[in-house]
Amino acid sequence: MSIITLTTDFGTDDEYVGIMKGVILSLNPSVAIVDITHHIDPHDLVQAAYSIYSSYRYFPKGTVHVVVVDPTVGSDRNIIAFKITDHIFLAPDNGALTLLINENNINSITRIDNTSYFLDPVSRTFHGRDIFAPVSAHLSMGIPIKKLGTPVAQKNLICLSIPEPYFSDNGELVGSIISIDHFGNLITNINLDDLEKINNTVPGKKLCINVGRDKISDLSPNYSSTITGHPLAIIGSRGYLEISVNGGNAAKHFMVEKGDVVRINTVK
Amino acid sequence: MSIITLTTDFGTDDEYVGIMKGVILSLNPSVAIVDITHHIDPHDLVQAAYSIYSSYRYFPKGTVHVVVVDPTVGSDRNIIAFKITDHIFLAPDNGALTLLINENNINSITRIDNTSYFLDPVSRTFHGRDIFAPVSAHLSMGIPIKKLGTPVAQKNLICLSIPEPYFSDNGELVGSIISIDHFGNLITNINLDDLEKINNTVPGKKLCINVGRDKISDLSPNYSSTITGHPLAIIGSRGYLEISVNGGNAAKHFMVEKGDVVRINTVK
Amino acid sequence: MSIITLTTDFGTDDEYVGIMKGVILSLNPSVAIVDITHHIDPHDLVQAAYSIYSSYRYFPKGTVHVVVVDPTVGSDRNIIAFKITDHIFLAPDNGALTLLINENNINSITRIDNTSYFLDPVSRTFHGRDIFAPVSAHLSMGIPIKKLGTPVAQKNLICLSIPEPYFSDNGELVGSIISIDHFGNLITNINLDDLEKINNTVPGKKLCINVGRDKISDLSPNYSSTITGHPLAIIGSRGYLEISVNGGNAAKHFMVEKGDVVRINTVK
Repeated sequence: MSIITLTTDFGTDDEYVGIMKGVILSLNPSVAIVDITHHIDPHDLVQAAYSIYSSYRYFPKGTVHVVVVDPTVGSDRNIIAFKITDHIFLAPDNGALTLLINENNINSITRIDNTSYFLDPVSRTFHGRDIFAPVSAHLSMGIPIKKLGTPVAQKNLICLSIPEPYFSDNGELVGSIISIDHFGNLITNINLDDLEKINNTVPGKKLCINVGRDKISDLSPNYSSTITGHPLAIIGSRGYLEISVNGGNAAKHFMVEKGDVVRINTVK
Repeated sequence: MSIITLTTDFGTDDEYVGIMKGVILSLNPSVAIVDITHHIDPHDLVQAAYSIYSSYRYFPKGTVHVVVVDPTVGSDRNIIAFKITDHIFLAPDNGALTLLINENNINSITRIDNTSYFLDPVSRTFHGRDIFAPVSAHLSMGIPIKKLGTPVAQKNLICLSIPEPYFSDNGELVGSIISIDHFGNLITNINLDDLEKINNTVPGKKLCINVGRDKISDLSPNYSSTITGHPLAIIGSRGYLEISVNGGNAAKHFMVEKGDVVRINTVK
Repeated sequence: MSIITLTTDFGTDDEYVGIMKGVILSLNPSVAIVDITHHIDPHDLVQAAYSIYSSYRYFPKGTVHVVVVDPTVGSDRNIIAFKITDHIFLAPDNGALTLLINENNINSITRIDNTSYFLDPVSRTFHGRDIFAPVSAHLSMGIPIKKLGTPVAQKNLICLSIPEPYFSDNGELVGSIISIDHFGNLITNINLDDLEKINNTVPGKKLCINVGRDKISDLSPNYSSTITGHPLAIIGSRGYLEISVNGGNAAKHFMVEKGDVVRINTVK
């Protein structure tokens, strides 16, 4: 029993995702196909990068992870595949796999150009159907990645410039909102290690988290440790600082957007 | 072949549901996972209660039904599991299973606290991934519920106060709109038994259903028994009175909301 | 391993789709159920017709395709099933299968009226659950279509009047926007054959595609062959002319709607 995961910006209003599944099941009838999400904001490669990076480790080894956020579909952009810790990744070479590439020394990367594994003809606009679906099906059946194309060096891959938190001149930790989830939770790029750098240097002081025009005092152990309707800061399930409102929607409460800054300092 | 159903307020924009499925399939690769819905309004426990109650009976015996609408995740709220008519239910102890509990005398209820069946570590914000997914996978593999925790008495469970229809002093049947579906149909809490109480006592008279400022005369046998664009009342698929518009959207037509009142009397 | 596909206007907010899957899996536990889409605009039979027509061929032979866009559910409208190129189709007799019927001489069509394959009782509002789900499960298990009802002649089926492109008196090719996808791409009813009729008669001239108040010059080979934010015309994955904006949303750019006209002529 093998698994293919799908992460796309296709939405679910159209027949595009269903067609990809039809192509996959035509080749590998016994594979389980799991949607990670089809609601990446159209063409948002940073969001795609975080989505697959946060998800893949919860699937069994051997899973094939397909990411199709592909604004330059049909151009001469490459499609790549590689294996990390026994997970296989397949995506356009456009940065969607940046977070995986950044933290791994990948032995072997393949540019997928063996057209005998594609549908024929290949359209100009829907490689999800014509290339990604059949190639992922073949990968899920155990065909070695190398058979599907030619080697490419890691240094030649396109990587996104992912915003990193930094310390400002006055000692504030400055991060940003990477994504906003369905509940309106603000997911930042600040992790526990970053927070401990501030926290540990000034014992006895509390963290002060500045979002929009508001301040939040210290981390909360859980959502309901504050009054309903009140904001709080918490380490979320990705391991990053999140800003939430107990029983509410932080994005609406703070009127902030993806990309906005979060500044952290300490107070007595 | 076992089945796990998922009913959550997670939406499908984020990777949360996909991650739960990854955890489940890592433990039980051959289980079929069926989404009932992930679009319960955030934190709406009454809607969750009706959703699972209306759905579970259409699945095979042995199905594990997981409900994760969990506004107090990470607090000391309990997680419970029990079996009714050979269906297994797993949810926070917050009322999401109220309609099932109300109509059954449940022999044995277990508070899920055996951490050896959880992921390690358990986050403060995503028990769907860390507890509900692995516990449901173990249940789908046949592990007895009792092994997963300690007994808890039915009288100690948290139940919601679900609005019930009643007769007013002037003999009107007063119910309310419990949910509004994708088509704009207004689903009430009034069932056929309630209607017969009015109907049978006054033979020869017609039901008059008052919604918003409008009146609908009697029940219709089907949507197209009225003119396109006209409102009608019908016994819906849940067995409850629904207000619809033939070919249209009743919620927009009547400008009403969840919780609004529906009053029924009789006319010549 | 058999497959059932679902194409409906049910949305995914309610429990309706989950319930259909429960009924199917109760009868055929090993079937794979694939959602084509549940977001057909409510009651939009033309959109349903294009959706299933564009999708079915990418599934394996033997697949059962269920279309439930059913505004007259509960009336005396028929339900029909037939087989084309070893794909089985099941839908209300309301035109949702028009594009399949138009291009095929179907040997044998069955009106589904053998109630022994339905749930009992059958509701007035949810034949997806009570008829389509159990009948499709039986079909996926190999029960012959003929066993499920009585023969009906192809000429008696209800077909939609699907808008076709035509040449105006001044030689313009006039088509229309059939659907608008998640990316805002405008999908027309003009195919490559239609375009070649113009193109080949006037060598050396370019196509001029008129949408809203704008003009697009000639077809593009792919999205990124124009500047980001610029409109383009391209043959899309359905094989029809589509109007897009590179990295943008053509529906917003042109402020057009489904049904609006696209006119094509030639210029030097």
